[in-house]
Amino acid sequence: MTDQDGQAEGTYVAGGGSFERDTRYIDSRITRDGRDGYPVEPGRYRLVVSRACPWASRLVIVRRLLGLEGALSMAVAAPTHGERSWNFGLDPGGVDPVLGIHELREAYLRRIPDYPKGITVPAIVDTTTGEVVTNDFVPMSLDLSSEWTELHREGAPDLYPEALRDEMEEVMRGIYRDVNNGVYRCGFAGSQSAYEDAYERLFARLDEVSSRLEDRRYLVGDHITEADIRLFTTLVRFDAVYHGHFKCNRQKLSEMPVLWPYARDLFQTPGFGDTVDFDHIKAHYFCVHRDINPTGIVPLGPDLRGWLDPHGREELPGTPFGEGTAPGPPPSDEVVVDQLGVHRLA
Amino acid sequence: MTDQDGQAEGTYVAGGGSFERDTRYIDSRITRDGRDGYPVEPGRYRLVVSRACPWASRLVIVRRLLGLEGALSMAVAAPTHGERSWNFGLDPGGVDPVLGIHELREAYLRRIPDYPKGITVPAIVDTTTGEVVTNDFVPMSLDLSSEWTELHREGAPDLYPEALRDEMEEVMRGIYRDVNNGVYRCGFAGSQSAYEDAYERLFARLDEVSSRLEDRRYLVGDHITEADIRLFTTLVRFDAVYHGHFKCNRQKLSEMPVLWPYARDLFQTPGFGDTVDFDHIKAHYFCVHRDINPTGIVPLGPDLRGWLDPHGREELPGTPFGEGTAPGPPPSDEVVVDQLGVHRLA
Repeated sequence: MTDQDGQAEGTYVAGGGSFERDTRYIDSRITRDGRDGYPVEPGRYRLVVSRACPWASRLVIVRRLLGLEGALSMAVAAPTHGERSWNFGLDPGGVDPVLGIHELREAYLRRIPDYPKGITVPAIVDTTTGEVVTNDFVPMSLDLSSEWTELHREGAPDLYPEALRDEMEEVMRGIYRDVNNGVYRCGFAGSQSAYEDAYERLFARLDEVSSRLEDRRYLVGDHITEADIRLFTTLVRFDAVYHGHFKCNRQKLSEMPVLWPYARDLFQTPGFGDTVDFDHIKAHYFCVHRDINPTGIVPLGPDLRGWLDPHGREELPGTPFGEGTAPGPPPSDEVVVDQLGVHRLA
Repeated sequence: MTDQDGQAEGTYVAGGGSFERDTRYIDSRITRDGRDGYPVEPGRYRLVVSRACPWASRLVIVRRLLGLEGALSMAVAAPTHGERSWNFGLDPGGVDPVLGIHELREAYLRRIPDYPKGITVPAIVDTTTGEVVTNDFVPMSLDLSSEWTELHREGAPDLYPEALRDEMEEVMRGIYRDVNNGVYRCGFAGSQSAYEDAYERLFARLDEVSSRLEDRRYLVGDHITEADIRLFTTLVRFDAVYHGHFKCNRQKLSEMPVLWPYARDLFQTPGFGDTVDFDHIKAHYFCVHRDINPTGIVPLGPDLRGWLDPHGREELPGTPFGEGTAPGPPPSDEVVVDQLGVHRLA
């Protein structure tokens, strides 16, 4: 199984119709009061992600921006995987050094021995028991903002401000349906009409979001929020994967006059671009989705160096972190090497 | 079978290695002296093409530029086809009104009853016998220039000038290997390394051709020649098909600063753009190559209206037709309707 796709390996395409994401998750929450049995505690939990997966990447960015690297450790799964599970093939011996397991599946089965669904990232595992606490990525990420506050770094931004939540929820709802999940609905459509419907919604929403961002630097309020993070994780994959692989090809992101500078602005902000690994992203989608890319060949393009071009959006109203400050560099063992595939291009 | 692919239906990808085009053709020539038994004669032959196929499209353009529409009639095959043959599904009753056949295959079998290879376009059929004369597209197109001269329109350009042939052959050889056929070598590669080799050659050649075209309007000499036609038929399919479907994705054509205006200049020249049917092009590649696009879904993008944008290349040395003139509009029964998919986009 793969990221939040809820499909059996190799059969992502929705036969004859529209792709529907399975959104029933293991939904225990880690909270300040520990009401689900999982109190916030430094060092107790391990976040399992793939740098390929847009849903997991939300968590990677939020953790960086809030400075939770010391309190919540992170395991990075290999970008490709077999039928059963994401695995720790990047680690020595193929074993996660903290959890001591080869496959993420083992932590799911410890929690629910007959777990019947896809093994998905992101997941948070309780290191005291080796059990998955949650794979429910929406509350997972919001809880890092609102429940883990005592462990935030000094100067951490407020990514989910109380006063803006209604507006954020509305913006994020449209972005989830038509963009974050919309690209999958394009790529895994089982019929021409299901594809065309998803494509029209995707680009209509991107046009709407573009208008919104024309004269403001960020989606909601005057600094980066969870809403920007959610849009970013789809945009950063757009030209490298979704444009060709998922047939989201009205234009490339790099041809969109507002969203391309917006995405570059975020990419160049500490905590965003430094979490992105384009090699993981491309390897995952093109190798794993064999029912839409049977050869498993990974495209060499596009040239990604444009992500570092000046964006000019400093002129617009808004500052990245509001009252807060930028995070420092990532911990040395989390630095992404050759992020833009520049070594390979050279 | 399909266009000049030489592969069995549904198995275009070259298992484990590089795609090799089968270039053994039926090679009788239609000449002024009729030495192969096929003298040039107005009204005797029928050119069978698909507007989807880049090899056939060379002939469609040459015929238009030379004003041979009255002397050499044309049958347009349906863009998609079954296992055995291109067919005349666009004609009333699915029958070509001149040849009286449903499938091009019938004309091949009349010539060679146990014809063992792919049924390809372009082909020229002798209407007096119903037999294929030739499917050898390289001499076929050059012969229209050099053997059919008495039937050319007044003001027809010289597309294959004697004095330039050595230079043209050299330029066209590189373009054939790395670009015209190179895109297929990317798309049908059977291994990552075969793909990467084809991709590197493709873009290296496009870069070389770009430099050449930076300060001259056309590839060889000072007006349009066969060399430009051959480059055009690949470039016009680049963003609509090859970029995504064949993973030729370093950049889109529309991101190439020299080749994009060069291609638009040709597109806007009578005899080029008026022969192009993007719906046929997209339907063919995405529906027929099921081994690289198993769903058969045809992408809605890209937006093709940019083909009509001003190109600014009138300033460069060179004029389209040298001593000659532009062809008039196409015959009314050959007009391509909704060429850019504008009705669908609206």
